[in-house]
Amino acid sequence: MNATGERKVTISAIADEAGVSIPTVSRVLNGRSDVAPGTRKRVEELLRRHGYQRRSARSPVNTRLIDLVFNDLDSPWAVEIIRGVEEVAHNAGVGTVISAIHRKSEPARTWLENLRMRASGGVILVNSTLDSSMHQELRRLDVPLVVVDPVGGPVLDAPTIGATNWAGGLSAVDHLISLGHRRIGVISGPRNLMCSRARLDGYRTGMETAGITLADDLIWEGDFYHESGFKGAQAFLALADAPTAIAASSDQMAAGAYEAVRRHGLRIPDDVSVIGFDDLPEVRWASPPLSTVRQPLAEMGALAARTVLRLAAGEPVESPRLELATSLIIRDSTAAPSR
Amino acid sequence: MNATGERKVTISAIADEAGVSIPTVSRVLNGRSDVAPGTRKRVEELLRRHGYQRRSARSPVNTRLIDLVFNDLDSPWAVEIIRGVEEVAHNAGVGTVISAIHRKSEPARTWLENLRMRASGGVILVNSTLDSSMHQELRRLDVPLVVVDPVGGPVLDAPTIGATNWAGGLSAVDHLISLGHRRIGVISGPRNLMCSRARLDGYRTGMETAGITLADDLIWEGDFYHESGFKGAQAFLALADAPTAIAASSDQMAAGAYEAVRRHGLRIPDDVSVIGFDDLPEVRWASPPLSTVRQPLAEMGALAARTVLRLAAGEPVESPRLELATSLIIRDSTAAPSR
Repeated sequence: MNATGERKVTISAIADEAGVSIPTVSRVLNGRSDVAPGTRKRVEELLRRHGYQRRSARSPVNTRLIDLVFNDLDSPWAVEIIRGVEEVAHNAGVGTVISAIHRKSEPARTWLENLRMRASGGVILVNSTLDSSMHQELRRLDVPLVVVDPVGGPVLDAPTIGATNWAGGLSAVDHLISLGHRRIGVISGPRNLMCSRARLDGYRTGMETAGITLADDLIWEGDFYHESGFKGAQAFLALADAPTAIAASSDQMAAGAYEAVRRHGLRIPDDVSVIGFDDLPEVRWASPPLSTVRQPLAEMGALAARTVLRLAAGEPVESPRLELATSLIIRDSTAAPSR
Repeated sequence: MNATGERKVTISAIADEAGVSIPTVSRVLNGRSDVAPGTRKRVEELLRRHGYQRRSARSPVNTRLIDLVFNDLDSPWAVEIIRGVEEVAHNAGVGTVISAIHRKSEPARTWLENLRMRASGGVILVNSTLDSSMHQELRRLDVPLVVVDPVGGPVLDAPTIGATNWAGGLSAVDHLISLGHRRIGVISGPRNLMCSRARLDGYRTGMETAGITLADDLIWEGDFYHESGFKGAQAFLALADAPTAIAASSDQMAAGAYEAVRRHGLRIPDDVSVIGFDDLPEVRWASPPLSTVRQPLAEMGALAARTVLRLAAGEPVESPRLELATSLIIRDSTAAPSR
């Protein structure tokens, strides 16, 4: 966002009076989390006392657009998040510009160049793994930023919106145990992602609470994609004492488990129960329809849009991290064990 | 797009000299199809002779954005089209604004109000069923328009991009017949959509070419959604002489057929073959992976973006209707009949 000369003077004056740097004032204005609480309070007070006019009133043109940025537009849940963002932006008369970072290809222009050209009013990054130079460039643009984080990438110094992954994992295992399962195979996401760790910890705690120890041969580390779910389920089904239920950390991996079960000549849920994580629209159409843990993706998008519009209007955000509740969706892929 | 006074004079002069109305000149400039060939030629010649400067050179700000408009953002193929549009726009330094018409709800603002406010450089409508007042309003905005039409809605007077539906239907049935199927049930889309008619005609011609008559009890009219595929397949499987193969006009209906087959205690492809239409990314993860007819949705989006950018730059389009080829994708849901 282009600051006018006048506004720069005001920020600079605030910074002087607060005894902090100009970027620190900017971080407070952008609701970023890397400001000490005492500093934030002092700067907020000065902004209020001097009647600092925040950006929205001064640059209306910039708040006509927000940017919604994905790593690549092949995320199965992209359209859910888009729907949530677009609905809020639409009602505010703001256009939602969709971009992809295009990590996999070498596009003629970078996403950041385009962003700069159109003077976006705010950016929502979805699960974006920015390298540090991109990250720095983005900060230089001084544009309000919110991160939607359904899988838990590296932490940026911006408000993030996620789901209650630990509680979701717990609820999946509680459901399987309540059906009578004791031997449960877990297909987790990559361990370097916080959300995978949170889900796995939830699964484990659910079992431990029921007096079950999660054995090492019943944990398979996948990558959230179909193939890894297929391989994990194949490994489980080859065990002498195969599990009667499989909890997968993504719906796509659950679909892979479906295929492994079918190839073993077994049936879901008669022979093996399967539960997923995400609740993508298409899992209602799986055969049988998939029981899963719902991440409220559209709601997460909507909250991200409301948050970035608030930041663009110069309003503060309540919390640097917000988690929306997951919910257990029971369909036809889970049943009592037959053995 | 806001025309300047100067430009209006020029269009008006061209209209006078050609002996046509100003909107007719505008239609020629926008590549619309409702202009008689002789008139189009005369107007194009006058535009050239007078060196009429088309819009791109005059209003660069407007070509920074294009609008991609869906009925609602719940189309399973939305993200595919978005990916294609975004990649072309991205490389041209143009932002892709996503909107939904929100027919199902009553949003505070209409999509057209927002479009007018941001002075979009062009609009890509996806399978949009605009009512006539919306249609007129959109024409009044005088913005380049392209329609992407994977299912064949009502025809607008704008270039449309689709897929070879008839040839796709033919290829699906040819594949089943080559495997040895003679009794094939067809789950079609709604008959009021041209694409459904084209696919159904392709299925029928494929059978007739092989000397098979498509009996009435082997045609089920669905609506492209899951539930109708489920019901159609249930009806087929209840027949005394049930079909050995089912051709569904959408992948979602094919998924519904999967569920009906499973509930009948039968297996795909051992007992019944199923083939879909679309090739949505997730059907690779169906169990078994779905054989289907691929619509090149991302390519259709890319072509739509290139076309709208050409129109915005004042260049002509080759054809008012372009169809991209479908292709047969054989996976594991089709096999020789067992009986």
